[in-house]
Amino acid sequence: MLRLAPEGYYRFVQASSYGATFGGGEANVAVSLANFGMPVSYVTRLPQHEIGQAAVNKLREFGVDTSLIVRGGNRVGIYFLEKGASQRPSKVIYDRAHSAIAVAEPSDFNWKEIFKEAAWFHFTGITPALSDNAAAIAMDACKAAKDAGITVSCDLNYRKNLWSREKAEKTMGGLMEYVDLCIANEEDAADVFGIKAKNTDIVSGALNREGYVDVAKALTERFRLKNVAITLRESISANDNNWAAMLYCDSCTYFSRNYAVHIVDRVGGGDSFAAGLIYGMLNNMPPQESLEFAAAASCLKHSIEGDFNHVSVDEVKKLSGGDASGRVQR
Amino acid sequence: MLRLAPEGYYRFVQASSYGATFGGGEANVAVSLANFGMPVSYVTRLPQHEIGQAAVNKLREFGVDTSLIVRGGNRVGIYFLEKGASQRPSKVIYDRAHSAIAVAEPSDFNWKEIFKEAAWFHFTGITPALSDNAAAIAMDACKAAKDAGITVSCDLNYRKNLWSREKAEKTMGGLMEYVDLCIANEEDAADVFGIKAKNTDIVSGALNREGYVDVAKALTERFRLKNVAITLRESISANDNNWAAMLYCDSCTYFSRNYAVHIVDRVGGGDSFAAGLIYGMLNNMPPQESLEFAAAASCLKHSIEGDFNHVSVDEVKKLSGGDASGRVQR
Amino acid sequence: MLRLAPEGYYRFVQASSYGATFGGGEANVAVSLANFGMPVSYVTRLPQHEIGQAAVNKLREFGVDTSLIVRGGNRVGIYFLEKGASQRPSKVIYDRAHSAIAVAEPSDFNWKEIFKEAAWFHFTGITPALSDNAAAIAMDACKAAKDAGITVSCDLNYRKNLWSREKAEKTMGGLMEYVDLCIANEEDAADVFGIKAKNTDIVSGALNREGYVDVAKALTERFRLKNVAITLRESISANDNNWAAMLYCDSCTYFSRNYAVHIVDRVGGGDSFAAGLIYGMLNNMPPQESLEFAAAASCLKHSIEGDFNHVSVDEVKKLSGGDASGRVQR
Amino acid sequence: MLRLAPEGYYRFVQASSYGATFGGGEANVAVSLANFGMPVSYVTRLPQHEIGQAAVNKLREFGVDTSLIVRGGNRVGIYFLEKGASQRPSKVIYDRAHSAIAVAEPSDFNWKEIFKEAAWFHFTGITPALSDNAAAIAMDACKAAKDAGITVSCDLNYRKNLWSREKAEKTMGGLMEYVDLCIANEEDAADVFGIKAKNTDIVSGALNREGYVDVAKALTERFRLKNVAITLRESISANDNNWAAMLYCDSCTYFSRNYAVHIVDRVGGGDSFAAGLIYGMLNNMPPQESLEFAAAASCLKHSIEGDFNHVSVDEVKKLSGGDASGRVQR
Amino acid sequence: MLRLAPEGYYRFVQASSYGATFGGGEANVAVSLANFGMPVSYVTRLPQHEIGQAAVNKLREFGVDTSLIVRGGNRVGIYFLEKGASQRPSKVIYDRAHSAIAVAEPSDFNWKEIFKEAAWFHFTGITPALSDNAAAIAMDACKAAKDAGITVSCDLNYRKNLWSREKAEKTMGGLMEYVDLCIANEEDAADVFGIKAKNTDIVSGALNREGYVDVAKALTERFRLKNVAITLRESISANDNNWAAMLYCDSCTYFSRNYAVHIVDRVGGGDSFAAGLIYGMLNNMPPQESLEFAAAASCLKHSIEGDFNHVSVDEVKKLSGGDASGRVQR
Amino acid sequence: MLRLAPEGYYRFVQASSYGATFGGGEANVAVSLANFGMPVSYVTRLPQHEIGQAAVNKLREFGVDTSLIVRGGNRVGIYFLEKGASQRPSKVIYDRAHSAIAVAEPSDFNWKEIFKEAAWFHFTGITPALSDNAAAIAMDACKAAKDAGITVSCDLNYRKNLWSREKAEKTMGGLMEYVDLCIANEEDAADVFGIKAKNTDIVSGALNREGYVDVAKALTERFRLKNVAITLRESISANDNNWAAMLYCDSCTYFSRNYAVHIVDRVGGGDSFAAGLIYGMLNNMPPQESLEFAAAASCLKHSIEGDFNHVSVDEVKKLSGGDASGRVQR
Repeated sequence: MLRLAPEGYYRFVQASSYGATFGGGEANVAVSLANFGMPVSYVTRLPQHEIGQAAVNKLREFGVDTSLIVRGGNRVGIYFLEKGASQRPSKVIYDRAHSAIAVAEPSDFNWKEIFKEAAWFHFTGITPALSDNAAAIAMDACKAAKDAGITVSCDLNYRKNLWSREKAEKTMGGLMEYVDLCIANEEDAADVFGIKAKNTDIVSGALNREGYVDVAKALTERFRLKNVAITLRESISANDNNWAAMLYCDSCTYFSRNYAVHIVDRVGGGDSFAAGLIYGMLNNMPPQESLEFAAAASCLKHSIEGDFNHVSVDEVKKLSGGDASGRVQR
Repeated sequence: MLRLAPEGYYRFVQASSYGATFGGGEANVAVSLANFGMPVSYVTRLPQHEIGQAAVNKLREFGVDTSLIVRGGNRVGIYFLEKGASQRPSKVIYDRAHSAIAVAEPSDFNWKEIFKEAAWFHFTGITPALSDNAAAIAMDACKAAKDAGITVSCDLNYRKNLWSREKAEKTMGGLMEYVDLCIANEEDAADVFGIKAKNTDIVSGALNREGYVDVAKALTERFRLKNVAITLRESISANDNNWAAMLYCDSCTYFSRNYAVHIVDRVGGGDSFAAGLIYGMLNNMPPQESLEFAAAASCLKHSIEGDFNHVSVDEVKKLSGGDASGRVQR
Repeated sequence: MLRLAPEGYYRFVQASSYGATFGGGEANVAVSLANFGMPVSYVTRLPQHEIGQAAVNKLREFGVDTSLIVRGGNRVGIYFLEKGASQRPSKVIYDRAHSAIAVAEPSDFNWKEIFKEAAWFHFTGITPALSDNAAAIAMDACKAAKDAGITVSCDLNYRKNLWSREKAEKTMGGLMEYVDLCIANEEDAADVFGIKAKNTDIVSGALNREGYVDVAKALTERFRLKNVAITLRESISANDNNWAAMLYCDSCTYFSRNYAVHIVDRVGGGDSFAAGLIYGMLNNMPPQESLEFAAAASCLKHSIEGDFNHVSVDEVKKLSGGDASGRVQR
Repeated sequence: MLRLAPEGYYRFVQASSYGATFGGGEANVAVSLANFGMPVSYVTRLPQHEIGQAAVNKLREFGVDTSLIVRGGNRVGIYFLEKGASQRPSKVIYDRAHSAIAVAEPSDFNWKEIFKEAAWFHFTGITPALSDNAAAIAMDACKAAKDAGITVSCDLNYRKNLWSREKAEKTMGGLMEYVDLCIANEEDAADVFGIKAKNTDIVSGALNREGYVDVAKALTERFRLKNVAITLRESISANDNNWAAMLYCDSCTYFSRNYAVHIVDRVGGGDSFAAGLIYGMLNNMPPQESLEFAAAASCLKHSIEGDFNHVSVDEVKKLSGGDASGRVQR
Repeated sequence: MLRLAPEGYYRFVQASSYGATFGGGEANVAVSLANFGMPVSYVTRLPQHEIGQAAVNKLREFGVDTSLIVRGGNRVGIYFLEKGASQRPSKVIYDRAHSAIAVAEPSDFNWKEIFKEAAWFHFTGITPALSDNAAAIAMDACKAAKDAGITVSCDLNYRKNLWSREKAEKTMGGLMEYVDLCIANEEDAADVFGIKAKNTDIVSGALNREGYVDVAKALTERFRLKNVAITLRESISANDNNWAAMLYCDSCTYFSRNYAVHIVDRVGGGDSFAAGLIYGMLNNMPPQESLEFAAAASCLKHSIEGDFNHVSVDEVKKLSGGDASGRVQR
Repeated sequence: MLRLAPEGYYRFVQASSYGATFGGGEANVAVSLANFGMPVSYVTRLPQHEIGQAAVNKLREFGVDTSLIVRGGNRVGIYFLEKGASQRPSKVIYDRAHSAIAVAEPSDFNWKEIFKEAAWFHFTGITPALSDNAAAIAMDACKAAKDAGITVSCDLNYRKNLWSREKAEKTMGGLMEYVDLCIANEEDAADVFGIKAKNTDIVSGALNREGYVDVAKALTERFRLKNVAITLRESISANDNNWAAMLYCDSCTYFSRNYAVHIVDRVGGGDSFAAGLIYGMLNNMPPQESLEFAAAASCLKHSIEGDFNHVSVDEVKKLSGGDASGRVQR
């Protein structure tokens, strides 16, 4: 997806140019993992034209295998992003209807072939929200992943501008049957499945940690999940957030350190968390370590422009190991 | 329409930002006329959101009345523009399907009301090419204009990526019945109506002026037009073009001076010609003077970035009066 | 007025380019009100040349009526702005002497005609500070406004580089006789009229709220005002301010919420407050609601580049309604 | 003088930022000479504030001695420059009235002291055009230079927006009595002294070389000059000019090579010629060599952004020696 | 190699930022071929640090296989590039001594392994010029290529700032024994081997085509080459060049069309020619067709910013097929 | 030294351009002092080419005398700087081996001549770390300074990527014999001489002030210093630091105010402190005043882009006098 963002803190009505980068839930996870040195393929559909090619190139640039991308369709989905500051929130205008992936056919993808050498399949709740076709493709992929015996993770990622809560619940509910690891932010479970954390007020930024343990348990039970991870963002302002996460795993709950982040770009924060967690699990870190790795990785994401999280394993481990001072490295 | 163009001569695959301006056939004509000091209204449909608002604002900025613009729909049409150089042509990727105007309904526009105080109605062949709805809206407008007794001009502006020649011929043929002044470039009459200038080779850049007199006569006869104007571009390279125009009017043919232009941005060249011609005719200039005004205005457009032609009447008259030396004004 | 500001946090001696925007007290109020959807005209004098035209265009762009602007003179006033950070203050160098408005004649403006359809007249203390002519023009306007029975508001806006306290007191004192609503910042009443808030230390950033109630009362009594509004800025650093405001109205005092703002651009903060208050009053909001609207509007201004406050009524109401979390809107 | 120019070929009404450089007739000559390795001092008056300091710094940067600059006044003169292209001319808007030098007093400069170690004094016709004070200062300087026995050169540099032809003739006529070397462009002698080259049409770009020999002779006789140099620009378009020069010296006429220049920035072209000629003469080159050096230096100036000519003696000599191929140096 | 170039036509002493791209002889050829859809690997040595990684990424971005790049050393070679204009030549300052590849050891590369699946090996005369180690590595590669039976091409690419003519002749002479296709520009054979084209004056831009046939014959005989290709650049100015090429193959001489190019960026012109020729030969085009493909590809390179030639096979064929008009594609 | 830094907060792998400024320990001190109005010369070695010239120019621009700079060598040292944010630290990649100063010979500098009119000599621990030659040059300079009876100050400035602790201790230990004032940051004394402050944890940002008194005493005793100054940075994040300093002088300890700085650019913070202290001492301020001046100067440096501290004496005194509110100056 093409991201078009006015420079700095300019509002849309002030913009005379747009920074052009690429991003989107699954792509962000793929680039994170490639930056961690993992072999990773990104599967989507993109037009043959140069804007489509530029999207392919930007994934290749960071080491993501793009050979499985189907080429066709006319549009690269676009989202316009206006960066917020202080009390003014960031604003997203989606222009992704009719994109190549939204109008793709299930027959465009041979999942059995795609998963031949795969160990893990990750998708987000944004994909099935794009169109009925995209939802059908996600379902095909989930089934094929299960058949291939590979782990499936899903980031709920509810987007109210793409579909209704009712449709989201129905579609995501079906897909969750195939999921091993469910990832959500502090709002998703309530938005999609009506599972709310008690005593939590998202707007005021006061989260009740215990309430989220209940949320994780409820999700686990409802969908027979192996693991549930929830990111816990406390939004003080558009510039300053507290950031932490929890992991519910084999009936145990783990909480990460809490980070006070001064935001450069918060888009892709959840995706960088997902990538960190997948990295930890694929490398057989114990739960607390995986969670801390994921939380530190996504903490760092907030300091990086664009959707992609350009950090190395060493940088993440230095932070998860306790050095958050930001002192110059020279 | 939002125009997104990589800076300078960068190709799409090199772009990390896009200059964002607004343009499009009729909008370009409107801004030109406003810059000439004429009262002018632009009629279209644009979304309520900030990208739609930015389009409205950019027209207001240059003095175009925007109070008749209908607000609705989800998309502002986009075109990606890569500026060519030397032997490498400029490249346009259209992303304008499903735009607010393409999905507008005829009932969105009350042309009788719109034309209440109007003296002239101008449209281009791009609008009916967008969708069947847009073609129906164009037809409504033409009929209402005739009923209101106002002059109608149409720039054929054939775009092969928007519709087939067959569909263009049929639709434009119908609309031409209401047209007084038909404007075309050196290719349009052949592309849309199969009316070709003899002994002309567009690719090599050698145009046969006499052939275009025949084209103008044929158009006039076929559609009972009052005037036909044809721009005559000889493309030496993406940087250097020769530029002139002819006007066929009351069975007389007029040719403008010829300009050797070193191109800054040639998009909107035809629109700036149309605006110049409308200005001349509305101000009762004699045919040769109107044509020279239009040719000089559009010559200057090639030296200006963006779709819009930011020149004053005085600047155009200085050039049409013979001063093409480009000496510093201080 | 043309604002020339080095990019980001560069100092003047580091600048190789200047961002060029337009602003100035009354213009900022006009654009704010237009962004709230109010019909608003801006009255000033600007040169015929292209820099003058660019100023007109930027006001038109955001929906301000510019048809009452008198064209003439040679200079557009300029102010150079260097954005401060941390302990380093922002710096303004004025280059506005001899501007078109400073050398205008009272006879350039026919206020009776100008106020024909007006309901409110707003001016700031900067205008009469520009020149004796400008002060005379302001006086003419005030008298004509009173004659026309329209509400007059004045933002004291004392600028020590434009005139002495003595001259300011004398001139502003005369104008205040015609004023209904007086707006001031935490320093203005002391600077212009010697009316100081007790126990307040501007430099250390500790304001004594009760002291400002006394200030408002004193102003009201001295000039028989209907309303006095005072903005209360506590400056922690060039990046971080606390922001609130009070309104004294019919012998009652109202205080707004307090906002901790992380500053993008604080110029125009006071003007955005004035515009918010005028909007509230013109729309018959009760005093507390008007004040909260004005305080929220001006809080948001601090997050926006340039002098103008590009926020909608909905955005302001969302903040004044309590959502200051800055969470992404998508 | 601060030069503010929209980026690239943008028109004033399109500019959202201005490139900020410094320039002006005598400053340009000073920087050229410093770039040739000559010791050179620039004498003017500039405000104490940071914009004034930035002007001082930019001269120091390139090795010009700034210790003789008087500090005072409020304004740095400004000129806005819009770069032309093809048939569209470059446009200059002056905003230099009331600048520090324009309002300087003759007593601000102690020319006897200033000229203590000087061998050459150069000024242009722009300085006396700024104000009566500036004209008086120029006269003081000329007299002091004569008294000190140093060579005086003057570039006529007529600017119609600064003064009338009548006033120019009277003032410049007085100053010319002290001048040894008079430099003019193809229009100046006619503009200032009514001495026209026969059979020359500036607008069409056809210059009659012989006519300029007559002009040089007439100037020499009228003002008892030692040398007259005239630059001969043939303007084909704003992008392409022919450039050459002549020198009339001891009753002999010399013509330089002719250069077909593709323009990057033509402002300062005449100043770079003056600097080249002064360099040649101060280094005792024979007339033809001095002229070729000056013509080559100013030819190269057209390829350089900004007012200043950043070329070395070696680069000039390579071109005056015949290598105009522009082949990469690596 | 990191290329650092001031924006636009700024000189080094004017630069406050550098555009950062990557390039270099063999890398440019690799990217060209990848853009033509050919599988291609680039072999070099680059540091582990982020500047080294950025170089890897930029090759990956355009589809070049980077898995054979050896990581080590401390420096990425740098070249500073100042773009020339009109009579002012482009200027290159090399800062590539001690780069990772210059200090590499022959043992860093296992050429037998590297060439396992290769069909063609291309290198340039720049690599052996970097250091004795680099020359030894080139020799190892040539021998291994011969052993593996794959075609070897070499672009002489003489750089006078890297080594003397004597050293170049000796080293390149040794390497030429393994070369099948030798590519040179109009100066290289004379610079490296003293084989000069008669009646040719590079500086004045007048090339004698017949003289180059003799050069090709002489090279062929001296080194028992299969093919010799020579690019023929006539430099009119830094902006305008004529461009053509010849191929000597099986005792036959072929000349390409001649192109008048208006230059955007001429660096990498020779490399884009080499890539075009390799593409033609690998795809078994007949000699004239290969040559025209190569000449058209490199003609287009001159219109593209940076070292890399971002053109597709279709775009090249359109030009080599005769359409050089640069008309907009939309 | 050339500093190449991606714009804003971009990481190296995201950079498509680098802001190019100049800096380095001693150069930064020189520019600071020149900005305070002190006469100051900078002594180094720089190549003749344009990159070397640009370095000279940038020092001249801010008033530093560059006439003592030796010209020669091939490289200007480079450092790549990636600005950190929040928990992500800034990152420096040095590319300064083989620079002109690193390969200079002791005979390149005639220190007796250089120090003829000097009152103070300042150097940093970075210079002797560059190469053995550079260390020998530093030793020559120290001895000559002592012979000339001028004060010597040294900022330890340990850089682990340039040399080992062992080598640093040995070399710096030798040089310290000639030093009067030793300046260090909170880590240097431990890194170079193994003298650690008790109960201090740099990473967590908690400094124990008393421990640093011991450090200062130990340094004083070991090297018979007159004064020791230590800057005390508490790093909360890459954006927020606490900043203070202490001075140990004649057996007395002085602590400065503490500043909470919101960082724009922290590189050069230590150098701006050194310059402030030298300024205070050269102007005979008492110890506490000198220290406050130095601390305030370096506090302000953190708000300024680039290595250089562009602040005036007045600005520093305003802050050291207590006004840290950052209120707009207009």
